Amino acid sequence: MWAEIDLCSEDLKSKRFFFCVGDWCDWGWTMRKATWGLLLLLTCAATCDQSGQNQDGEQKGPSRRGHVSVVVVGSTGDLAKKYLWQGFFNLYASQVGKGYSFSFYGGGLSPDGRGTPLLFEILKSQDCPVDVSDERCALVREQFLRLAQYRQLKTEEDYQALGQHIETQLKQEGMVEAGRLFYLSVPAFAYADIAQRVNRSCRPPGTAWLRVVLEKPFGHDSNSAQELATQLASSLKEDEMFRIDHYLGKQVVSQILPFRKGNRKLLKSIWNKHHIDRMEIVLKETLDAKGRISFYDQYGVIRDVIQNHLTEVMTLLTMSVPKNLTDCKEINRNKLKVFSALHQLDMPSAVLGQYQTYNSEVQLELNKTKDHFSLSPTYAGIAVHTTMPQFDGVPIFLVSGKLLDERVGYARITFKNNVFCAQDQTSITCRPKQIVFYIGQGQLQYPAILVSKNLFKPALVNNGWKEVIENDDTLLFGIPLSDYYIQTPVVQQEAYTELISQVFRGRRDHFVSAESLLASWKFWTPLLNSLKHTFPRPYPGGAANGNLLDFQLQGREVRFCSEALVNMIPQEKTESFQVMQGKYRSADMVSAWSKELVERLAHDLQEAAEESVQEGTPFHLALSGGSSPLALFKQLTQHHYAFPWWNTHVWMADERCVPPNEAESNFRTIHDHLLQHVHLPYFNIHPMPVQLNQRLCVEEDGGALVYEQDIARLVNSSSFSYVLLGVGFDGHTASLFPGNRLGSSGERLVALTESPLKPHQRMSLTFGAINRARRVSVLIMGKGKHELVTQLSRIKDTPDRWPITKIQPVNGRLVWYIDYDALLGQ
Amino acid sequence: MWAEIDLCSEDLKSKRFFFCVGDWCDWGWTMRKATWGLLLLLTCAATCDQSGQNQDGEQKGPSRRGHVSVVVVGSTGDLAKKYLWQGFFNLYASQVGKGYSFSFYGGGLSPDGRGTPLLFEILKSQDCPVDVSDERCALVREQFLRLAQYRQLKTEEDYQALGQHIETQLKQEGMVEAGRLFYLSVPAFAYADIAQRVNRSCRPPGTAWLRVVLEKPFGHDSNSAQELATQLASSLKEDEMFRIDHYLGKQVVSQILPFRKGNRKLLKSIWNKHHIDRMEIVLKETLDAKGRISFYDQYGVIRDVIQNHLTEVMTLLTMSVPKNLTDCKEINRNKLKVFSALHQLDMPSAVLGQYQTYNSEVQLELNKTKDHFSLSPTYAGIAVHTTMPQFDGVPIFLVSGKLLDERVGYARITFKNNVFCAQDQTSITCRPKQIVFYIGQGQLQYPAILVSKNLFKPALVNNGWKEVIENDDTLLFGIPLSDYYIQTPVVQQEAYTELISQVFRGRRDHFVSAESLLASWKFWTPLLNSLKHTFPRPYPGGAANGNLLDFQLQGREVRFCSEALVNMIPQEKTESFQVMQGKYRSADMVSAWSKELVERLAHDLQEAAEESVQEGTPFHLALSGGSSPLALFKQLTQHHYAFPWWNTHVWMADERCVPPNEAESNFRTIHDHLLQHVHLPYFNIHPMPVQLNQRLCVEEDGGALVYEQDIARLVNSSSFSYVLLGVGFDGHTASLFPGNRLGSSGERLVALTESPLKPHQRMSLTFGAINRARRVSVLIMGKGKHELVTQLSRIKDTPDRWPITKIQPVNGRLVWYIDYDALLGQ
Repeated sequence: MWAEIDLCSEDLKSKRFFFCVGDWCDWGWTMRKATWGLLLLLTCAATCDQSGQNQDGEQKGPSRRGHVSVVVVGSTGDLAKKYLWQGFFNLYASQVGKGYSFSFYGGGLSPDGRGTPLLFEILKSQDCPVDVSDERCALVREQFLRLAQYRQLKTEEDYQALGQHIETQLKQEGMVEAGRLFYLSVPAFAYADIAQRVNRSCRPPGTAWLRVVLEKPFGHDSNSAQELATQLASSLKEDEMFRIDHYLGKQVVSQILPFRKGNRKLLKSIWNKHHIDRMEIVLKETLDAKGRISFYDQYGVIRDVIQNHLTEVMTLLTMSVPKNLTDCKEINRNKLKVFSALHQLDMPSAVLGQYQTYNSEVQLELNKTKDHFSLSPTYAGIAVHTTMPQFDGVPIFLVSGKLLDERVGYARITFKNNVFCAQDQTSITCRPKQIVFYIGQGQLQYPAILVSKNLFKPALVNNGWKEVIENDDTLLFGIPLSDYYIQTPVVQQEAYTELISQVFRGRRDHFVSAESLLASWKFWTPLLNSLKHTFPRPYPGGAANGNLLDFQLQGREVRFCSEALVNMIPQEKTESFQVMQGKYRSADMVSAWSKELVERLAHDLQEAAEESVQEGTPFHLALSGGSSPLALFKQLTQHHYAFPWWNTHVWMADERCVPPNEAESNFRTIHDHLLQHVHLPYFNIHPMPVQLNQRLCVEEDGGALVYEQDIARLVNSSSFSYVLLGVGFDGHTASLFPGNRLGSSGERLVALTESPLKPHQRMSLTFGAINRARRVSVLIMGKGKHELVTQLSRIKDTPDRWPITKIQPVNGRLVWYIDYDALLGQ
Repeated sequence: MWAEIDLCSEDLKSKRFFFCVGDWCDWGWTMRKATWGLLLLLTCAATCDQSGQNQDGEQKGPSRRGHVSVVVVGSTGDLAKKYLWQGFFNLYASQVGKGYSFSFYGGGLSPDGRGTPLLFEILKSQDCPVDVSDERCALVREQFLRLAQYRQLKTEEDYQALGQHIETQLKQEGMVEAGRLFYLSVPAFAYADIAQRVNRSCRPPGTAWLRVVLEKPFGHDSNSAQELATQLASSLKEDEMFRIDHYLGKQVVSQILPFRKGNRKLLKSIWNKHHIDRMEIVLKETLDAKGRISFYDQYGVIRDVIQNHLTEVMTLLTMSVPKNLTDCKEINRNKLKVFSALHQLDMPSAVLGQYQTYNSEVQLELNKTKDHFSLSPTYAGIAVHTTMPQFDGVPIFLVSGKLLDERVGYARITFKNNVFCAQDQTSITCRPKQIVFYIGQGQLQYPAILVSKNLFKPALVNNGWKEVIENDDTLLFGIPLSDYYIQTPVVQQEAYTELISQVFRGRRDHFVSAESLLASWKFWTPLLNSLKHTFPRPYPGGAANGNLLDFQLQGREVRFCSEALVNMIPQEKTESFQVMQGKYRSADMVSAWSKELVERLAHDLQEAAEESVQEGTPFHLALSGGSSPLALFKQLTQHHYAFPWWNTHVWMADERCVPPNEAESNFRTIHDHLLQHVHLPYFNIHPMPVQLNQRLCVEEDGGALVYEQDIARLVNSSSFSYVLLGVGFDGHTASLFPGNRLGSSGERLVALTESPLKPHQRMSLTFGAINRARRVSVLIMGKGKHELVTQLSRIKDTPDRWPITKIQPVNGRLVWYIDYDALLGQ
């Protein structure tokens, strides 16, 4: 049943045909000529190579390397028909005569009688690699067909039978087994079951390998992805799973890291925030989702292509280039670092669209009534930002949509204009600079890497690529092609062919690890959750979209440029109410919906800080812990770029007695959410000294006194410019809890206190210190605080029971900031 | 001799002529119609108004406000002829009938017989303001001529005579004196003398004011400016001096702050580094310096127009907008803040050019021989950066030159592209955005403020301005005029007319204060000194310059784009030697010229830091004080954007026992030059605890032990990743001085030590701590260290005498970085 052909020796010299056997081959020459599949095999180093077949000098000649069983589950589906069998055929053609023997099983749910003709129909129609003569191709194809068979794979028993069949055949032929490759081209819900069956019934014995290829969707959010990962992990080891993101097999995408490495000297000085203006990673489609709605509507564009394809490209552009490009561990580590450095996304990070006829397609395909409305976006524009110092502030736009004007995929890095043109503005020096990874389709119609000539002349990424000499003045991104250095693969190759050959070689570097998959979902899930109820903007499709889908960046947020279209849903409540001013407990009160309230507080805070600047005095700001101020910090860091931080001292209103860099520490929270993002002199930052002499808040270490002395030394009359407080359900503020007898602490500014909640020990400004401040604000937000707000409005000053009621600045001003949720309980 | 005319009452209703008397005038109507001189008077509020004439409700009617004597010293020179008398004539025309009386003295070195006809020739030829009828103008001019006289002003006696003349006349006419205005239109070297004479002989008695107008050059560097300021201050009070920068009188320049204030709501969110791509402040001339060489060659383009005009514009663009636009104190304070925040300039901050025929003009006009070569630049391009958080990283280009292709002045703010255009790239949303303060000349030929329509529609800066409705597709900076909102003054007015009317009103806000003048010189002088011996690039002039003068930014440095032209001087030595590797005191040594040495050290440091990242461990870096590492810090902050600071802990190798934020503190130095510019988590910064319990380095406070414990807690095996040391002339390193018996301190990592130099008390890592490090580098630079380097190379290990010789890492590597100056003594 298994046959071998050897086309090498007879052809090597006469026709320079490039199949060859082991040592006989002139590899150098072959590499230059080899232009499909094989190329990638040869240029890959071996670090991630599990099989070792390249290094194994002793196992030369036909059949010595052992037998490989390929099983395509879902072998007559669309993907298999279009790409997978072609990939396996190419693999076979490239491997023939290299020492392996093969068998190919097309699996499916249909019984053999229906499946077999369907499968062979597909197998017969596979194209030959371009460099192979028709005559030879016919021979290879005939061989390939002889090695293939259809098998029903539906029940546990089917898999058992397959496993037994393979073993029997191996024994009969006296073959050594190299490994088994399962390609699961089935819906994701079937993965876990199949993996279990493969594990139980088809796992090869001994040292032969098992490789199972899977493709997205790997879950639809963080939890489901984790669940799937756990299920699969119970059947398969991580290094047995090959998660395909077919974008990683795109020729241009697979060359991003080699390009960055090969041009590292030139890129080193410009691949950073000082030179990069922005990155755009774009996948535009002209097709709609018709016919795929049952799948698509569960996912939408972000899950469909952005969480995976575009995100992978983003990591390749921003990760540290690994020392060894084939070291999948290093690649994985560096990718994870990218994820851990990303700013979290939330609702304002994205704009969503949905083409107008989508909803009626949904109603039709999903049998829904006319009042059903799908919120799945078919277009999304997202701005991603990273805290990596190298790219801090550089926006990364991820954009994809269906029914747009053009089918195209690219990653484009535009550079800042660093040239001053004194006279002639038309010369090439003065023109825009960019690097484009043109993944395919679009105007060019071929995959290419383009570099503006006024940037640098890049090295060819590898021998399988060539320079394009265009004298064309076609504009690509507003720049004539003749202004770019362009390189393109000598032969274009399907992503699946490349990836299948890598699975065969056990090369894991172009596959998605479980860790990086989960990191990606962890990154995307909060955004997806926050957008759950967002109505996408409808768009007509094609050229008629015009500028409807253009969006703009403001801080780290995006919004559509034209807000002309009236949303079909009522405006959010936040916009229909204004900020209200009033009185609360005889002091001033500002109230609004939380968003406006935080905006107003941030505004007032900046105004106070600016007043200090005007007066030529430092702005001494004391901040509390807790979660309420987080929204304020976000507002300050993202929208108040002119805040005079250089003139601001940040003090703590209270602190928990834990090491200051632990997550529980108030200072840590303020550090991570505020201080880390703004530019304060080190000397202006004043954490409370809760840890002295390697121990926490011990009375005799005198931490409270130290802080008090610091205040006295730096703050004029120990009177803070601004103290921001919250209030707890029990009426505590700062760390002044009910029952704490601080009324008697007299002149003390800082004291150790006790909290009823863990950690019990606290350090806090005293009432005395707070009431000396020029301005005190109390921020209260959320429905949960409504009862408290109501209660506080009724009671008298009872500091022992309700410490907050003792906040009464002597010469300063107290303002309550209470959101409508807390005030009205709505 | 002093006459008054009253043209107001009879004309007010009939011809709507706008001279009018006090209360009778319809001011609102007048303001709308008034289009020269007067306008500025009316719109100026009174904060900086010293005379109070506007507020003075009781002194109405002719002559009640008193008499003003105007003295133009240098009254028949070029400037006076072209601009000054016109300004005074306009002033007179605008003030006639408002209650002041005037006399005008044209002073000069010539005797009366020669000066008088010359002066009257000039006075007669002054143009009338456009809105004034010929008939009326003749009347005003006749009056003006009757009020004017020429006086020789050469000797002390001449000034005495002038003073007496004024007093006599005042007495004869029974006039109250309002004040005396001296306009010194003479070379700057004469300022001090004249000021002295004015002070001695012409100072008005009583409450009448004295105002002396001066114009650049105010010195040619920091010292000379200070000297001039001191000289002048001995004769005149600061508020008696009006230093003109005529750029501040340009209509567009004077509206920069009003524009920023009037559009502050719209600008607030975009006037910062997140939106501004760059600022360009440009003054291009087509003329050469012919005929002015004797002046120009001493100054060159930076002193001539950049230190003053362009710098003033820069401050107006970047300063905080004062609450009150006429509050000269606030303006001054805010301007000074701009200066104090600027990054210091040095040689690589500028490119210089000189038009090719300049040198022969110099030889001719200065009677120099053919081998004389002038280094004065006639073109300069400079990149200025500020540390203001709002503009941190935004390059500000200041560019000016003679013999360029176009005569034009503008300040242009280009904005980052914050829009993603999904489909149609041609719509206005997708086009570049900019704000242009078009000062004059150039393509437009009129002064204007232009705002891209896709930014916002600006408010008119004031009533004297109008919107330009252009349907023109002329391109201005690559954008059709129709894409801009354009506003322009209704009537164009000379800067001197505006400024003279402001001097008359005692309005100081558009003049240069002594403080800001000195701040500007303090900023420019180091650059000027560093460029003293730089050969400017020769350029042919006009269109032929092509792209020769284009320059580009790299970090904060600039260089010409095309380095094609061979410099006429030999290459600097730094480029003709490579980095050398060798041995020194049995350890590895790297040597090079200082620039390359620092580059190499920075590179090695980053490599070491990256290794730690690879290993997944923090990079613990201990740094020493002193000046040698400053160049390294600069290199790191400006060129090593990818340095993994987030993974780095910074420790101190030693510290002086001074409060850590004082200038003498090592930590302060490291903070200001390194930490302030990079992004380290707060927790990764480890100053030595030299100040505990409000006192410095007291043994029983245990600071050394605290630091040691911190090290033990955070640094694996207390083994620093990298220790960077210097070495003092006495052989000390860190703060380990000769004679300190630390050999016996055994296991201690940190110790208090004694320095022979002040401050004596120090805290230092011990030999033990340093020698545990994985890598230790000793950096030695400068000729001054040559002897030390030679000596150290010869001696044996003698730690008591030469502490540096005890640096011998146990398991780590020691590398000496010694520059050629220190190594070779050249």
